[in-house]
Amino acid sequence: MSRLLENIVSELNRLPGVGRRTAMRLAMHILKMDEQDVASMTASIDDFRNNICRCAKCGNLSDTEICEICADPKRDNGVVCVVEQVSDLLSIEKTRQYRGVYNVLGGVISPMQGIGPSDLRIDLLLDRIAMGRVQEVIIAISASVEGETTLFYLMNCLKQFKHLKITTIARGIGFGDELEYVDEHTITQALINRREIDNNL
Amino acid sequence: MSRLLENIVSELNRLPGVGRRTAMRLAMHILKMDEQDVASMTASIDDFRNNICRCAKCGNLSDTEICEICADPKRDNGVVCVVEQVSDLLSIEKTRQYRGVYNVLGGVISPMQGIGPSDLRIDLLLDRIAMGRVQEVIIAISASVEGETTLFYLMNCLKQFKHLKITTIARGIGFGDELEYVDEHTITQALINRREIDNNL
Repeated sequence: MSRLLENIVSELNRLPGVGRRTAMRLAMHILKMDEQDVASMTASIDDFRNNICRCAKCGNLSDTEICEICADPKRDNGVVCVVEQVSDLLSIEKTRQYRGVYNVLGGVISPMQGIGPSDLRIDLLLDRIAMGRVQEVIIAISASVEGETTLFYLMNCLKQFKHLKITTIARGIGFGDELEYVDEHTITQALINRREIDNNL
Repeated sequence: MSRLLENIVSELNRLPGVGRRTAMRLAMHILKMDEQDVASMTASIDDFRNNICRCAKCGNLSDTEICEICADPKRDNGVVCVVEQVSDLLSIEKTRQYRGVYNVLGGVISPMQGIGPSDLRIDLLLDRIAMGRVQEVIIAISASVEGETTLFYLMNCLKQFKHLKITTIARGIGFGDELEYVDEHTITQALINRREIDNNL
């Protein structure tokens, strides 16, 4: 087998979800791409790996020391939304409804995967709160066992700040979800958090 | 969103089977990889795209003008196995049973996809046969409508060489296949091609 082909296949094979067969298919696709396009793809990978930073204030991925969101004077520094990872932050940003800032934990506490509290960016959150402008912390982490553990740990860290309002995002039935297929725990939460409908609307 | 992150996600997003969500997941994985490993991965991609050749004799991917198989004096130049693509060649090579050479067509005739006979490496096959050493051509292309069309077209091209033995790989029940789930056409072929069992074995 060609050494060049063997190299690209075994390198791509190291990516998650890419078996040798998929790696081969990708190699064949790369062969058909413009030389210029391939160069621009690999440059974007190297550039990302070598130059991306973590925002010193929130842990978001950033091209600069402080991310666009933290640097934006129009964002409300009084509200911090705690998320697990950058993709969660991006999902919330897509709604264009949230004007506060974030704290990207970088995961949840998981003894099984060897992730403890010190592996998460909780210190950044505490530093920010200690600076005194934060009024509310919205905890938007997943409703898993690990998520609940992390929530509990965070609550414990935050209870020293007496003035702080701490909220979690609502658990409920998603838009378009069919009740039939929603788990009991979510239905229970949705019932408990039921809202009165304003008849005058 | 970070420009570096946006770049890598949209570049990876252009690969087949990689949506924005997968691209994001790959970017996060790349972030965790060693800088050295990322550099070696992107180098292997560029190196492959810029330096890989098609063997001038068979169309196989090769680091050199003539591929390892065509250049190997121990391979039997009297038998040519015609395959659609390089991955088929590699599958056959893995068996270590075949000692002839190959012709990599580069696809099958497919009017729907705009692939005509002139897009395939049939000329390489005919050139090789015209040189006079080929005794047998094994046609190992898939049993689809396009495959059968290509087979028919090849038979027509090859009938000028009266001395040539032309074979196709056997259609039959695969090792481990359950008869219950095998299609009728394959079962029909397997019945027609049934083999007598030697009782003395």
